[in-house]
Amino acid sequence: MKDQTIPYKIYLNEDEMPKTWYNLRADMKNKPAPLLNPGTGKPLTAEELSPIFCEELVRQELDETTPFIEIPTEIRDFYKMYRPSPLVRAYCLEEKLGTPAKIYYKFEGNNTSGSHKLNSAIAQAYYAKKQGLKGVTTETGAGQWGTALSMACSYFDLDCKVYMVKVSYEQKPFRREVMRTYGASVVPSPSETTEIGKKILAEHPGTTGSLGCAISEAVEVATKNPGYRYVLGSVLNQVLLHQSVIGLETKTALDKYGIRPDIIIGCAGGGSNLGGLIAPFMGEKLRGEADYRIIAVEPASCPSFTRGTFAYDFCDTGMICPLAKMYTLGSSFIPSANHAGGLRFHGMSTILSQLYHDGYMEAVSVEQTSVFEAAEQFARTEGILPAPESSHAIRAAIDEALKCKETGEEKTIVFGLTGTGYFDLVAYQKYNDGEMDDVIPTDEDIAASIARLPKVPV
Amino acid sequence: MKDQTIPYKIYLNEDEMPKTWYNLRADMKNKPAPLLNPGTGKPLTAEELSPIFCEELVRQELDETTPFIEIPTEIRDFYKMYRPSPLVRAYCLEEKLGTPAKIYYKFEGNNTSGSHKLNSAIAQAYYAKKQGLKGVTTETGAGQWGTALSMACSYFDLDCKVYMVKVSYEQKPFRREVMRTYGASVVPSPSETTEIGKKILAEHPGTTGSLGCAISEAVEVATKNPGYRYVLGSVLNQVLLHQSVIGLETKTALDKYGIRPDIIIGCAGGGSNLGGLIAPFMGEKLRGEADYRIIAVEPASCPSFTRGTFAYDFCDTGMICPLAKMYTLGSSFIPSANHAGGLRFHGMSTILSQLYHDGYMEAVSVEQTSVFEAAEQFARTEGILPAPESSHAIRAAIDEALKCKETGEEKTIVFGLTGTGYFDLVAYQKYNDGEMDDVIPTDEDIAASIARLPKVPV
Repeated sequence: MKDQTIPYKIYLNEDEMPKTWYNLRADMKNKPAPLLNPGTGKPLTAEELSPIFCEELVRQELDETTPFIEIPTEIRDFYKMYRPSPLVRAYCLEEKLGTPAKIYYKFEGNNTSGSHKLNSAIAQAYYAKKQGLKGVTTETGAGQWGTALSMACSYFDLDCKVYMVKVSYEQKPFRREVMRTYGASVVPSPSETTEIGKKILAEHPGTTGSLGCAISEAVEVATKNPGYRYVLGSVLNQVLLHQSVIGLETKTALDKYGIRPDIIIGCAGGGSNLGGLIAPFMGEKLRGEADYRIIAVEPASCPSFTRGTFAYDFCDTGMICPLAKMYTLGSSFIPSANHAGGLRFHGMSTILSQLYHDGYMEAVSVEQTSVFEAAEQFARTEGILPAPESSHAIRAAIDEALKCKETGEEKTIVFGLTGTGYFDLVAYQKYNDGEMDDVIPTDEDIAASIARLPKVPV
Repeated sequence: MKDQTIPYKIYLNEDEMPKTWYNLRADMKNKPAPLLNPGTGKPLTAEELSPIFCEELVRQELDETTPFIEIPTEIRDFYKMYRPSPLVRAYCLEEKLGTPAKIYYKFEGNNTSGSHKLNSAIAQAYYAKKQGLKGVTTETGAGQWGTALSMACSYFDLDCKVYMVKVSYEQKPFRREVMRTYGASVVPSPSETTEIGKKILAEHPGTTGSLGCAISEAVEVATKNPGYRYVLGSVLNQVLLHQSVIGLETKTALDKYGIRPDIIIGCAGGGSNLGGLIAPFMGEKLRGEADYRIIAVEPASCPSFTRGTFAYDFCDTGMICPLAKMYTLGSSFIPSANHAGGLRFHGMSTILSQLYHDGYMEAVSVEQTSVFEAAEQFARTEGILPAPESSHAIRAAIDEALKCKETGEEKTIVFGLTGTGYFDLVAYQKYNDGEMDDVIPTDEDIAASIARLPKVPV
């Protein structure tokens, strides 16, 4: 039943929006392991990183001690165009489930990029502009990150070159058109515009590309063209820092109404959303001020936390990027086709990996048919058509709420609804037509790719 | 520059949301002309309308005197899931234009149906449920209305049959899948499921359908199946009544900050958005309490107000629906292909037609290439990818703001941003590729269809 004191949607006022990002690493006793140079096996220095990333972003990437980092006014002004995002009480879903649990979701989909990715895209574009760069390069798979970056670059009048995995470029023409509308140049990868692209095309004519290849092309273009840098939408520490705006807003909204969550749930691909959502709550937990159950939800087809190993690995399948210590299925692991493209990464944020390793959070894996079942139930009760990625969190939240129904516990569940599914209707059609299935990797598949992990001194 | 006292987005609190709809007709001295029975030429009675529409909706359709009609709690609860919609100050657009004008837009696109249509869909579904009906039927062209109705029916557990113009069914499979995800059955029209459909298919094998044909099929199914009624997403008085929630929220938000608009702008197809947005402002104007410039924006390819005639005409191209006195291009007028599918209606709400006839509002027509130019400029500055329909209002708002730049006047402009363009990317692609053109009807085209208007005693 509706609690009259809690509105359906809690919106903060502009003056309640965060003025700083929160750097979770400052409160971690066991810091995330440093990125290593794959050539030397030694931690990467600011000097090594600065040809690839903007200077300020390198600083943020390496800063393990400053707890709060000021959000520049220009970024806060952009945030005001689409933030604060609402924290929604899922009254209708609760009623449909018949659960005594109280369910809240932080909805990040009310912007044209359709997801939380914009929170970091605008920050990365801002620092590129401030450094006087001409533009940035990136890769995109499903297209959410590329769209967010296109919007951010358009706002700051920066050139934006997006290498889009060829299969997505062809199958998701609408994502491509959104990026073009924002003035980005979108190149299907592999392409003839780079050395690595030409090499791959020569070796594998007719290939439809991969994220690893697109990363390689984007990095090559950034490092070879003066005035350009490469940007990335997940995994990195700097990205989790920017995404802390999600969790900070969530916490302020909950505090405003005296609500204390018991369980916090987020989907996890590279970790950008989960890391952002949980940041201030995990901070309290690390400082011993409060306790929460924190649950990462990943696809059963790509289960980095639940079936991966904690080790140094390449961040990309092309094995040109730095080594990161993380939960990984091995950079040679190829997940079966899953419609949550944003969750098909073999590894995980080093911050989240360390926290999981140290027992501060749990992880579950869910199968995509059950994810779409939850997505449909959510759409029909709460009105929002969720992205497949976000629907992993919905699945876990519903499962926890149903446990409460059995036990009679009135737990408060908060989950991150990262985005909308307007560009995922091929997947919904498969589900509607009863043609979706689940392909789970075998133990042998995972063991084989883990056996190929790089040898690194730890 | 940013006025520190006005936030980017004005959100009302839940307790500030309207509790009643406003019935503009109550304040009109010259009431809109009644719908006529095309057989008898006499005003349609409640008895004649009730086999087609729900009883309460018939009452609302015919009520010319009650100024405020209570919004039932169940509808207000649903509104709370996606409303209040934000009234946004377009600071970034203003800066880009270099105009002294202050621009605000009421954004209705933050819900899965992607437009304002949900405001009336939920009301119509509610009254159908309350009357104990099994379900409703409707037609949809581009799919916005069908999507909104599917969501509303899913919420109230009503059956929903949508006749979707076949060409849209095939070209817009994603809209179709959203409707299916909400449990609606979507039938390409013309179909073999109705007598009229069979007849049309026999006469025109291979036809890709029309809105008029889809209306005919939906009405046939509603009237032949016990427990079903037909619902419509625009043009009708009841729809404008429900859509007044847009204008009421807008006015409350403006009043809260002491803002008085000079110009109010909305796109106009059948009139549902424009009629809703302007309702309380027009009410003040009719009562002599305030004055505003109110501007309807229509496509140059389908210019009902600016080049049509004020006369009784059929509401559908199939000529089976009642006659309405309105600005019309003639029900046999076939507008050239225009990407704003929601604005391709030959006629106009009788309420708005009367008000325009009586000089209470202005109308302008704009060409679609200039509309997409405005859409792109808006997307790049304000971050939202607008629907082509909504972008007509953006075009006119930008034009007014540029006039202010010339004159130095600090006018306050409010426009309705009805929805998002996620399902209109074929159109954006045409624009991005430089392949969009403008086809304007000739005077002869319009004269020919107006010559075929039905003979009715006026």
